Amino acid sequence: MSAWVLPDHIADVLPSEARHIEELRRELLDTARGYGYELVMPPMLEHLESLLTGTGEALDLQTFKLVDQLSGRMMGLRADTTPQVARIDAHLLNRRGVTRLCYCGSVLHTRPDKPHATREPLQFGAEIYGHAGMEADLEALSLALDCLKATKVGPLTVDMADARIVRSVLAGVQADRPRMVQVHAALAAKDATELASLTKDFPEAARRGLQALIRLYGDNKVLDEAAGVLPDNAVIREALANLRWLAGHVEGALVRFDLADLRGYAYYSGIRFGIYTPGASDALVRGGRYDEVGAVFGRNRPAVGFSLDVKELVGVVAKRSLKAAIRAPWLDSGPEVAALRDAIATLRRDGETVVCILPGHESEVDEFHCDRELARDGAGRWAVRTL
Amino acid sequence: MSAWVLPDHIADVLPSEARHIEELRRELLDTARGYGYELVMPPMLEHLESLLTGTGEALDLQTFKLVDQLSGRMMGLRADTTPQVARIDAHLLNRRGVTRLCYCGSVLHTRPDKPHATREPLQFGAEIYGHAGMEADLEALSLALDCLKATKVGPLTVDMADARIVRSVLAGVQADRPRMVQVHAALAAKDATELASLTKDFPEAARRGLQALIRLYGDNKVLDEAAGVLPDNAVIREALANLRWLAGHVEGALVRFDLADLRGYAYYSGIRFGIYTPGASDALVRGGRYDEVGAVFGRNRPAVGFSLDVKELVGVVAKRSLKAAIRAPWLDSGPEVAALRDAIATLRRDGETVVCILPGHESEVDEFHCDRELARDGAGRWAVRTL
Repeated sequence: MSAWVLPDHIADVLPSEARHIEELRRELLDTARGYGYELVMPPMLEHLESLLTGTGEALDLQTFKLVDQLSGRMMGLRADTTPQVARIDAHLLNRRGVTRLCYCGSVLHTRPDKPHATREPLQFGAEIYGHAGMEADLEALSLALDCLKATKVGPLTVDMADARIVRSVLAGVQADRPRMVQVHAALAAKDATELASLTKDFPEAARRGLQALIRLYGDNKVLDEAAGVLPDNAVIREALANLRWLAGHVEGALVRFDLADLRGYAYYSGIRFGIYTPGASDALVRGGRYDEVGAVFGRNRPAVGFSLDVKELVGVVAKRSLKAAIRAPWLDSGPEVAALRDAIATLRRDGETVVCILPGHESEVDEFHCDRELARDGAGRWAVRTL
Repeated sequence: MSAWVLPDHIADVLPSEARHIEELRRELLDTARGYGYELVMPPMLEHLESLLTGTGEALDLQTFKLVDQLSGRMMGLRADTTPQVARIDAHLLNRRGVTRLCYCGSVLHTRPDKPHATREPLQFGAEIYGHAGMEADLEALSLALDCLKATKVGPLTVDMADARIVRSVLAGVQADRPRMVQVHAALAAKDATELASLTKDFPEAARRGLQALIRLYGDNKVLDEAAGVLPDNAVIREALANLRWLAGHVEGALVRFDLADLRGYAYYSGIRFGIYTPGASDALVRGGRYDEVGAVFGRNRPAVGFSLDVKELVGVVAKRSLKAAIRAPWLDSGPEVAALRDAIATLRRDGETVVCILPGHESEVDEFHCDRELARDGAGRWAVRTL
């Protein structure tokens, strides 16, 4: 094996894409900042129990583990940033009121989520803690939409669901964990036959509810239909009312419902949403309410948030042209050095890229397209001229 | 152990510092971009042999290892980005001419470098490949100084050395590796007694050269002195001439020499430099020439570069004040909603932070200092007024 071959699903980001990712990163962070979300940078590595307690098996399997040589304890590489941000809200900031936090950094997965997925997504996300009302859900969703609009992605479709609905339909059902995992998978795949076979010995109400959920997919009419076919209890009534309220307040995106959707992390406890755009095979953004996520850190606060992978986002945004650079000659002695140096420094301060052509490399073409050069004009002054 | 306790030498970066680090990150990357350095993003994880071949034992001990579940092979978490960038230059870009690359991302260390060091530095660096002449050394050093100046750090002192000098003094000496490590440590500590004891059985010329190196520390006069007391050979003559040339071209920093300095990575092959500022216990920047670093990837190109830890840098730059934010009321129904929403969107587009006060949280104080609020003026229009 050659030393330069990378592991599967791990890749370098080369200049043309890296520049683009860096621009998106700044636009996303600046948009979140405009809403008052404060940046935090949790570590790549933590004790395993901090990363995983309360987060479910899927995240455990996704997490790389290693031994801390300083303590002999197991550590994990973060596979998701949300539990870390919940820890920060709970223990480091420990504010009494609303806390808005955002982050952008690599996460690592032992296995790719999808056939062509990277094992090192660049996760950007934002979370709001301390407000149980739907206003927080709306702010999180609005910020997610504004983030995508800031990067010129569109048109956007929001798929909404509520984690309480499936949970309520399944409440009181006795089934072991592996079976429940299969039931969730059949729901996600909308596979009525498989679902019927898996739930043969479930109570009749649960079976009917699950079969109904599979068809509860589409526009606003889904909510009316759901009220008729799902169990009539307070939890489901509230979930449907919340969905209706939130959908009524979304701007600049088409809203659909998919009440059987349970994809993504296990920690969701209320409204959940995915944002889609043509050209992306899966949701660009996933988010929702996860009021229980801070419980393991001793502080169970209302929480809503979302995240996206900037490396996936860069695949659907329109390519931007590279700002052309200016060539400058190399001089290290002679009376012209000081004037040339000043001219270059001034251009760079103004945001220009000035590439100094090192001796012997005058005829090379590099990645920076140079459309101008710095040269002396008739009066002997250094001036920029078009190439 | 509580779930929220982090491993030793691992820390969260909280909002007040994270914001600051993000600003520095942008200033550093923009400065490098102004010089024509293209951003690359190598992965956090690679096969161990890609990360470590040719880089020496110190980096091996610093590198966390884990098993790739997809291949069963050993992978490492990068402890230094330079070997990765050399791989990118050698194999992915494979350009014939000069290539300038920069990067900014986390690296992870199994043990802290220093008593209070983090095990997760945020490494920023820049590298120029393909030019063997001293112009590349000068450009790398100038860029490093400009990066620090862009972040308003100063005054700056450059310590210069050349890896060829110690190597030439020790050429032909027969000693095992552990002894050589001790010799290097004694040199770095300028411990003449220890050095004499370790080198008792070394040839007389090497012993004299090593003892001389310990005293070759200070300003320009060191170079004259070195020419008199070090072995008179072509390698040392060239190294001293290179140091003199480079020192003569540095602007905006005091230059010193420390010819015994061998700290940092083992891959340096020529000029090496450290940049110091008052308030930092160690060099903020380390850099130099490492022509051999790409050899393991089958492409031995001239290379010069430098790196710094942004988390260390943030400790010595002057704190900047947070731009104050604007409070806005929360409205989700009524005739005023659309006008309020437009007013908020306009302010955010103009770069302002507008924090919407969620119902019930009107009296909270958050991290964003709000010095203004959005309220209706006498004419019923939404306007910003001072608090």
